[in-house]
Amino acid sequence: MIGFDADDTLWSNEPYFREAEDKFCDLMSDYLPYHTIQRELFATEIDNLKLYGYGIKAFVLSMIETALRIGGDTLPLGTVAKIIEIGRNQLEFPVDVLYGVEEVLKSLKSKYRLVVVTKGDLLDQERKLSKSGLGGYFHHIEIVSEKRPSDYTKLLKHLDILPDEFMMIGNSLKSDVIPVLELGCYGIHVPFHTTWEHEKVDVIITNPKFRQVEHINEILTLL
Amino acid sequence: MIGFDADDTLWSNEPYFREAEDKFCDLMSDYLPYHTIQRELFATEIDNLKLYGYGIKAFVLSMIETALRIGGDTLPLGTVAKIIEIGRNQLEFPVDVLYGVEEVLKSLKSKYRLVVVTKGDLLDQERKLSKSGLGGYFHHIEIVSEKRPSDYTKLLKHLDILPDEFMMIGNSLKSDVIPVLELGCYGIHVPFHTTWEHEKVDVIITNPKFRQVEHINEILTLL
Repeated sequence: MIGFDADDTLWSNEPYFREAEDKFCDLMSDYLPYHTIQRELFATEIDNLKLYGYGIKAFVLSMIETALRIGGDTLPLGTVAKIIEIGRNQLEFPVDVLYGVEEVLKSLKSKYRLVVVTKGDLLDQERKLSKSGLGGYFHHIEIVSEKRPSDYTKLLKHLDILPDEFMMIGNSLKSDVIPVLELGCYGIHVPFHTTWEHEKVDVIITNPKFRQVEHINEILTLL
Repeated sequence: MIGFDADDTLWSNEPYFREAEDKFCDLMSDYLPYHTIQRELFATEIDNLKLYGYGIKAFVLSMIETALRIGGDTLPLGTVAKIIEIGRNQLEFPVDVLYGVEEVLKSLKSKYRLVVVTKGDLLDQERKLSKSGLGGYFHHIEIVSEKRPSDYTKLLKHLDILPDEFMMIGNSLKSDVIPVLELGCYGIHVPFHTTWEHEKVDVIITNPKFRQVEHINEILTLL
């Protein structure tokens, strides 16, 4: 069984969040410098993670809360409508499948059961999977509320497999690789050029079940 | 394998949505009569279902959009903050397990694999399951983006079982019962006193794999 992270592993996603964040900072530029707004938004997102979780709807609510806090009584009402529009657009963005992904999936599908493992909203991820044209390669989508070792333990139990029978492939060391290695699964890191602040870690991994590749199609040689 | 719907089957939920809706209609009472606001909100929710899906975050975004549309330029900014507060409170509401539920789960656990099958947000449903104290009875939570026959087909494939091996128990004929009967699974209807407009249907079911019970603990006699 091989689990693929979705956003920024199968298709690009973080650049769209950064673009949305840019638009938000522009909307609020009368109040504070760009980087201060960015920092305020990030702080709101982290505060809200436990309550709202991940995904675009949570992001939109965090933008509105940040705008209300920064703007106070002088915030134009139209800003709220514009933030909602940013979110709606983001939900309808095109899906750009990353280079090499389809070749890898095509080649692995006959030998392994492939699943998508993601923290996002199911509806949004199903829509992206359908738009990507990759749906046929996957057995199903697994939604997890977090990607901690305990969440992967639940996932393995649910899939009825042993750690040794599971490999996870993704762009986040923190979410896709380190927790699965901890359980005795295999973990492959495929870095993406943009990483969300919250997913950054600074470590050197020596686990024999770990590999880092530059392009996803190097996995075919590894396996 | 037995699937339990979560909201208004294991614990009460719709009354909290109705309470939140009440608060929203009060907030907007300067603009329109209660029932007109209620109808406008419902229309927004249905329009947004395809984009936002189910759950509290989608509900909050729909309330904000409805307020902006009804209030126009005269909407006080504070109303947006109050709507966000309604949503945050709703996410933190207590979980009231319905009468007889625990007795049923305790009795079925040793003979069947029990799963929660829900359209809500995973994070929110995990939180409710944990607050309910019922977590230990379930193998895992299945999140589906809709409850159409095609979604249950995906679920059966994912669980690796035949329609004949699956029974679904829930308070919505439309979502929990009719689609599974269509696939050849068993479906049990346990009505709840409050049903969301969107979940209402008017049918008579004669399928031999269907039963309706007044209280969930009658399921023990049925099985």
